[in-house]
Amino acid sequence: MSQHAPAVDHLFLRACRREPVERTPCWMMRQAGRYLPAYRAVRARASFLDLCHTPSLATEVTLQPIDEFGFDAAILFSDILITLPPMGLEVAFPEKGPVIANPVRTRADIDRLVVPDPVATMPFVMAAVREIRAALAGRVPLIGFAGAPFTLVTYAVEGGGSKEYAKTKALLFGDAPAAHALLGKMAALVADYLIAQIEAGAQAVQLFDSWAGVLSPADFDEYALRWAREVIARVKAHPAAAGVPVIYFANGCAPYLATYASSGADVLGVDWRVDLATVRAAVGDGVALQGNLDPGALYAPPDEIRRRVGKVLAQAGPVGHVFNLGHGVTPATDPEHVRAMVEAVRELSARSPA
Amino acid sequence: MSQHAPAVDHLFLRACRREPVERTPCWMMRQAGRYLPAYRAVRARASFLDLCHTPSLATEVTLQPIDEFGFDAAILFSDILITLPPMGLEVAFPEKGPVIANPVRTRADIDRLVVPDPVATMPFVMAAVREIRAALAGRVPLIGFAGAPFTLVTYAVEGGGSKEYAKTKALLFGDAPAAHALLGKMAALVADYLIAQIEAGAQAVQLFDSWAGVLSPADFDEYALRWAREVIARVKAHPAAAGVPVIYFANGCAPYLATYASSGADVLGVDWRVDLATVRAAVGDGVALQGNLDPGALYAPPDEIRRRVGKVLAQAGPVGHVFNLGHGVTPATDPEHVRAMVEAVRELSARSPA
Repeated sequence: MSQHAPAVDHLFLRACRREPVERTPCWMMRQAGRYLPAYRAVRARASFLDLCHTPSLATEVTLQPIDEFGFDAAILFSDILITLPPMGLEVAFPEKGPVIANPVRTRADIDRLVVPDPVATMPFVMAAVREIRAALAGRVPLIGFAGAPFTLVTYAVEGGGSKEYAKTKALLFGDAPAAHALLGKMAALVADYLIAQIEAGAQAVQLFDSWAGVLSPADFDEYALRWAREVIARVKAHPAAAGVPVIYFANGCAPYLATYASSGADVLGVDWRVDLATVRAAVGDGVALQGNLDPGALYAPPDEIRRRVGKVLAQAGPVGHVFNLGHGVTPATDPEHVRAMVEAVRELSARSPA
Repeated sequence: MSQHAPAVDHLFLRACRREPVERTPCWMMRQAGRYLPAYRAVRARASFLDLCHTPSLATEVTLQPIDEFGFDAAILFSDILITLPPMGLEVAFPEKGPVIANPVRTRADIDRLVVPDPVATMPFVMAAVREIRAALAGRVPLIGFAGAPFTLVTYAVEGGGSKEYAKTKALLFGDAPAAHALLGKMAALVADYLIAQIEAGAQAVQLFDSWAGVLSPADFDEYALRWAREVIARVKAHPAAAGVPVIYFANGCAPYLATYASSGADVLGVDWRVDLATVRAAVGDGVALQGNLDPGALYAPPDEIRRRVGKVLAQAGPVGHVFNLGHGVTPATDPEHVRAMVEAVRELSARSPA
């Protein structure tokens, strides 16, 4: 098999397309992360940004969970904020969470932000995608990703994480045209960036709207979903994206089920706070669903993990489901509990031949 | 009018009972708080705990927002964690959030916790209720409150606030009998405590389940709702509670609408992330709803605040609605924007006589 074989028949890609599968594919958000001793060993000699900027290191940590647990998809090691520095924002990644030294506060700040060429400004990402594809050698597909416009705006405006999103909401509710100008710049770069990852070899892409869940439903539609839809439409209109599933993950999606499926994504990510059966009933059969075990379930003993995996699989049904956690795996998680989860998914979702 | 008149005909109490009202009543979670200059002036000479422990100070700050904005209900100044020290937990309240020096981690820790007599151990609370009632002199009803069992457990187990609730979930999912033993102790005290507040003069009570929203729907039912229901049933079974509305507020309730109304509460609190029309359709007409303007909407200019108040009122309809924010008002809020909200509620909800 060629290193760049399209792998169109891989379990994960078939599930994204809602095709029949012999068992439910499984991967895990933040699967290349601090819960893994092998990852911590790499981090002991390189910073988080070093990993993002060095294709060989990004490749090493991206493959670790594939080798260790046999996940059915790899996801590019990077960060959703990686697109902010090329726009003109100074981002640092201390252990306590990202900090932006020059946050966006005024219309002039917004107008100053550039929409750069992602290939020219983030060549290390495209190189990492190519190197990971080569290293995977067709074993499993590679998922690329980006932060969704609204979530990127929260970081750009707050200057980091936030509890109340006061500055973001002051912008959204106090100067909607300025907010949309900022969201539009984010969307333009994110669309180009995802297309560039696909052209470099990403076989699926996920748009992370990690903080969309702080909005009322009407504000979600206007400020988060509208711009996610714009990104997804631009990606889907590009010839290179033909057949490449797009996953949209709005964390805390339960209040938005009436409109969530209109994102245009092939797959909707679902956090653990809502039942997959409820989501399926609300969004219909036109999309696949990805999720949604509570990451906290991995603190339970293996028997209880297995019971909870079974509940998620039963709710999701056999078609159009990609098993995942409902949010990123936490650093305190025992890797053996991750193994118990993966084994439970494999065993409990195995379909007897028709 | 007697200072302790039952005020059964007050707007707020009638709305809680789903009776016709000439306009929608309005109060605001954390209305006695740091956004108010008069409150900050009191805090400059007394600590947060001093306010909780000194009835005259609690009375002073409880009445400030009534005097300033004409809210339709007062709420006891206190804290949901006030019930933890009498159980044997050492709680401190630094500016960054509460810290518990001896968190609950083992079954032995749980067994050591006592379920004290609330009147004997928290006499300052009952004294504050009596003094506030006297000071209000029948102007508006007084709401008492407590933390709900699950939310209190998260603090007791994590030792403060949390992001991932790892220790709480390890307990819930790893040792359910121990978790229920702890929840049961919390529920027993909280029920007695709310009854004691009612006997001292509270005319309604609210149970705050601030962190219930970190659970999957099945876990919400088992660990949060089940014990809130137990508290509410015990309160409602007490003769002193006859005619006293009970409000249950599970923050982040959107995923739980199928079971939320089974709490037994007269009023369900609703956070801003879900539409009141969606909640009403799901929970039926047997309960009143309280909420749910995004606290972040108060960062908008007055015209936009008014537009958003109108949307909430239109979704709620005229019957069985208590206007509130969808969460506590934030310290950075401009008091004049609170005034704009209160005026908008009064004007936009005014009903012409039938």
